[in-house]
Amino acid sequence: MGANLCLALAGSGARVQAFGRSRIISAVCNNVTWMNGLSDDPSAVVRAIEGNNIVFHLIGASTPASSNKDPIADLNACVINTLKMLDICRESGVRRVIFASSGGTIYGVPQSVPIREDHPTEPISAYGVSRLAIEKYLSLYKYLHNLDYIILRIANSYGRYQVPTKKQGVIAAMMINVLNGVPLEFWGTGAAVRDFIHIDDVVEAMIASIFYEGPIRVFNVGSGIGRSINQVATDIERMFPNTIAHRVYREARPGDVPTNVLDIGLIKQEMNWSPEVAWQAGLKDTADWLRDFLEAGGPAH
Amino acid sequence: MGANLCLALAGSGARVQAFGRSRIISAVCNNVTWMNGLSDDPSAVVRAIEGNNIVFHLIGASTPASSNKDPIADLNACVINTLKMLDICRESGVRRVIFASSGGTIYGVPQSVPIREDHPTEPISAYGVSRLAIEKYLSLYKYLHNLDYIILRIANSYGRYQVPTKKQGVIAAMMINVLNGVPLEFWGTGAAVRDFIHIDDVVEAMIASIFYEGPIRVFNVGSGIGRSINQVATDIERMFPNTIAHRVYREARPGDVPTNVLDIGLIKQEMNWSPEVAWQAGLKDTADWLRDFLEAGGPAH
Repeated sequence: MGANLCLALAGSGARVQAFGRSRIISAVCNNVTWMNGLSDDPSAVVRAIEGNNIVFHLIGASTPASSNKDPIADLNACVINTLKMLDICRESGVRRVIFASSGGTIYGVPQSVPIREDHPTEPISAYGVSRLAIEKYLSLYKYLHNLDYIILRIANSYGRYQVPTKKQGVIAAMMINVLNGVPLEFWGTGAAVRDFIHIDDVVEAMIASIFYEGPIRVFNVGSGIGRSINQVATDIERMFPNTIAHRVYREARPGDVPTNVLDIGLIKQEMNWSPEVAWQAGLKDTADWLRDFLEAGGPAH
Repeated sequence: MGANLCLALAGSGARVQAFGRSRIISAVCNNVTWMNGLSDDPSAVVRAIEGNNIVFHLIGASTPASSNKDPIADLNACVINTLKMLDICRESGVRRVIFASSGGTIYGVPQSVPIREDHPTEPISAYGVSRLAIEKYLSLYKYLHNLDYIILRIANSYGRYQVPTKKQGVIAAMMINVLNGVPLEFWGTGAAVRDFIHIDDVVEAMIASIFYEGPIRVFNVGSGIGRSINQVATDIERMFPNTIAHRVYREARPGDVPTNVLDIGLIKQEMNWSPEVAWQAGLKDTADWLRDFLEAGGPAH
């Protein structure tokens, strides 16, 4: 997400300062000032934020499954560091913080789909709880300190620069398994439904959030279309007709919701944003990048 | 709240283990095993919880105003310590955790009153955000580890053992000022509306929560009646006809909502609970205790 956002921002002529632990951003993003650092190092975060107008807060590290094994570590890494960052933002005069929240975990098990932003938020993972806490603190800092924000509750994003070895992104993980001729792994029956959104569309929503001047502060970002994991596997296999992938079904993980499809009517109306990348084109783009990535040396790239 | 709960539980024949920093519980509660300790000391919390069936989690310390000055300290003191406690509860085989949440702060500025439990939760204080995070983790621990819980979103409670010097409880604070002949202090215009509930009614709801076997997990606990702070001041002054109290109006504090009245239909229906203490009787009971408290030596008691 960070690499794609940096490329788009720098490509549009913005002055971009990136901060974190990504090896990809420093490798692929020209015209971006890269600072390698940890989010629990306040002096480094001050240097990264100072002088900047907009802060994109793309928090990472844990997954729903890993967060449930150590909720305290997840809370410390995500929420405490975010609060420190928000204090730095308000002291530095940042105009707006744009937070990549989690449309896939923040609602919990949906009462109905597609899920609107006013659906109850009952996460079944510590990952979802900590994202929700960050959302509430953003609203609090606006109220107390007039630090502006936009929250994007992003569905399952996929596309270029999603490194499949990092255990995130079911599409990238499946594609690399098909390419390597190893079985596709499923947590549960594969009937779970997700809302997949191409990273280019996510980046467009992020950029639109810079300029949005309306009153809404929380938006879903997804395709609005639900696809089962089994169907995604079938769609991916059809892209590689010379391969036959076995499917291995493992026990479902606690913290994975059975279904998640986002209602995207609000962001369409407010920001005039719509998903533009068609499913087949998005898969092909992702597969093309992944092949190049593997040919260039794979994860060591 | 702790002292009143301990007295009621011990009076009904329960074996009660109390833990914390309260000097009042150790002074007034016979038949209660008291352990002085800090909630960030895991080995002390283990000793307090081991062998007990029900844990009442009455978290304290910060106020909405103080929490906003240091949200990180509030989050550490409240949420991190609660997560450590929940791990101890599940390892110790606790049957149910009953959490005293905050009906006054968790909803934020209400869209309408009375406020139902399904009203959006948009706190305007870090105090409210940390209570909300605790609620979400309770739900998560039920889902992940089958640790049962009941959340009581309690309105402004008042009554015996609310020590007015601890800056909590507007009724106790006003009464002591009237008795001492010093001006009544208001944050804002005094037009703010609150839902006051006598501590005896709160304790009844807590005890009912031990035995509740229905499916609901989150309940408002209040009177369902809104009273302005100015009206409360007038009602208190009428109890002390020989005194004339000046009123001093200070600037409103961020984090105080303009109005808060809870809808208590759900707990009435599910637990057959209703507030029993009438307003005038509750005020008189509180004033009587406060006079005795002051005559016995006041805050040094």
